[in-house]
Amino acid sequence: MNLINEKIVDYIQNHKNFLLLTHQKPDGDAIGSAIALGKGLKKLGKQIDYFVQFPIEQNINLFNEINYFNEMKNSSYDALIVVDCSTWSHICKPDKIPEYKTVINIDHHITNEGYGDLNHVEDVAAASELIYRLLKQMKVPLDEEMADALYTGISTDTGSFQFSNVTSETHQILSELYQYPYSYANIARRVHHEKTLMQMKMYGAAIGSTTLLNDGTIAWTVLNHKTIDQYGGDINISDDIANIGTNIKGVDISVTLKEVEKDIYRVSLRASSKCDFDVSSIAKSHNGGGHNKASGFTFRSKLEVLKQEIISRYNDAGNGRNQQ
Amino acid sequence: MNLINEKIVDYIQNHKNFLLLTHQKPDGDAIGSAIALGKGLKKLGKQIDYFVQFPIEQNINLFNEINYFNEMKNSSYDALIVVDCSTWSHICKPDKIPEYKTVINIDHHITNEGYGDLNHVEDVAAASELIYRLLKQMKVPLDEEMADALYTGISTDTGSFQFSNVTSETHQILSELYQYPYSYANIARRVHHEKTLMQMKMYGAAIGSTTLLNDGTIAWTVLNHKTIDQYGGDINISDDIANIGTNIKGVDISVTLKEVEKDIYRVSLRASSKCDFDVSSIAKSHNGGGHNKASGFTFRSKLEVLKQEIISRYNDAGNGRNQQ
Ligand SMILES: [Mn+2]
Ligand SMILES: [Mn+2]
Repeated sequence: MNLINEKIVDYIQNHKNFLLLTHQKPDGDAIGSAIALGKGLKKLGKQIDYFVQFPIEQNINLFNEINYFNEMKNSSYDALIVVDCSTWSHICKPDKIPEYKTVINIDHHITNEGYGDLNHVEDVAAASELIYRLLKQMKVPLDEEMADALYTGISTDTGSFQFSNVTSETHQILSELYQYPYSYANIARRVHHEKTLMQMKMYGAAIGSTTLLNDGTIAWTVLNHKTIDQYGGDINISDDIANIGTNIKGVDISVTLKEVEKDIYRVSLRASSKCDFDVSSIAKSHNGGGHNKASGFTFRSKLEVLKQEIISRYNDAGNGRNQQ
Repeated sequence: MNLINEKIVDYIQNHKNFLLLTHQKPDGDAIGSAIALGKGLKKLGKQIDYFVQFPIEQNINLFNEINYFNEMKNSSYDALIVVDCSTWSHICKPDKIPEYKTVINIDHHITNEGYGDLNHVEDVAAASELIYRLLKQMKVPLDEEMADALYTGISTDTGSFQFSNVTSETHQILSELYQYPYSYANIARRVHHEKTLMQMKMYGAAIGSTTLLNDGTIAWTVLNHKTIDQYGGDINISDDIANIGTNIKGVDISVTLKEVEKDIYRVSLRASSKCDFDVSSIAKSHNGGGHNKASGFTFRSKLEVLKQEIISRYNDAGNGRNQQ
């Protein structure tokens, strides 16, 4: 394992007050890396505050330490420590940013802007891997909640160790975490499987609506107003639902639509791992965002128009199937 | 890591012809451990035959070596090597069992009968972990297919590294497998997610049928004849469908029924990890089998009768909720 930037270690060891921040709409890795680092630094006698955006999704709201989030005890800090966030603008910050001497940026996105005074950016599977190494380097022992938090971060950012971002070192870290008999199996169930009855019903209804287009290469899933009214849920399309299509054999692109109002849809696009077509090219032409495997946008017109556009773009790109 | 029984290593090294066997209805661990061992022994110059029950489920039918299954070139073998099978009767054997000198039994089920002349039974997550260690001990290098086969075995028997059978050593082995840049992400998708459109539709229909009983502690899912006729599928209830209920928040027991004929149902029972109720107690009273977390049986009567029986048994057991 590489060392974490020694200047970060030195700065932390020689200072006292830290405010921990992460990206907006925090995911399992954001929460997990913030909590493991925060509790670890408290063990070293540091004063730690957290500022994190709420609500935290139910399936990652697993940690007692969350009770201490957003209790800002100081008006100035020795450093802001930002974990798992690639750009300064995407950090969830207090309306009035407190005074600080330094920004420490610890992240695993290769697109990271390097906005810190001290940066450690490394292309690993999860920010939680970097926090694990930092704590080990500072010789901070892990308690159960810290280990569970790191597990949560790595497990969520790797899709339970399945994505292509997993490395030998990812499993090496897990091997070390498993030297403690903690709650990993229970966390895995909570994080990857557990749904409320209504979420499960929404998922089933989404599958029921799925049709295949263009010789089975494009999946089309629509959650209409009636379904949403029946099973609740907000404007976001969950990853589970967005990926229904890509989990069907032969499908390259999954298109999922959620009816916000009449003729206004939230659209989520996913490409299967064996497909080279860049779905963000469609999203960007509709002022949306994302990356080549997962992107989204808002669509205001008739669905038939969008359907034809996506089929044409996919076919014009020569199907985009790679050799895998 | 413990050593694999040295007598097994010696016997293999000093003999030539082996027939590899595993349990009936082979799963990912059965196929994965057989292929990794078979190809490894071929590299040592051994003559290897396989006898394995077909059909092999689509999602684990990933290996070129399967083309060599069931080509029995010999009428006698130095040893039968049985992997991942706890009892002699559960082994898939040829109608006419060839002559053999010795039975070698390599398994990870603590219930293993010890039916071999040479046995290595150890309570690890997957037989593939033991095969990994055996190959390492015999200094056989892994090629891509062998590594992919071991990954498949461990990943399927651990539910993608989520079950409570995972240990530090499981991840240590994965860390070593990931030193080779093989097809693990693609295998994970195939094994854990990919469904045909009809399988996906059956899954969605099953979710659509799910109702909660007994204050939300028991989930009840019924695949009736109409659904089965529409989406195909055999008498088996897939793990995905059997676990719909246990993935719903608050549910302790998931009951899934598949209508075989009028008033004849295949029944699958699952208990959630946080529930101590032994579902095999119900299955056994209906001449079924399985273990405390997963069991099944055939039911011939009205569903309302079974529903009341399960509710009563669950409530009589004091709900069976443990402290987790
Ligand atoms: Mn992350
Ligand atoms: Mn097994």
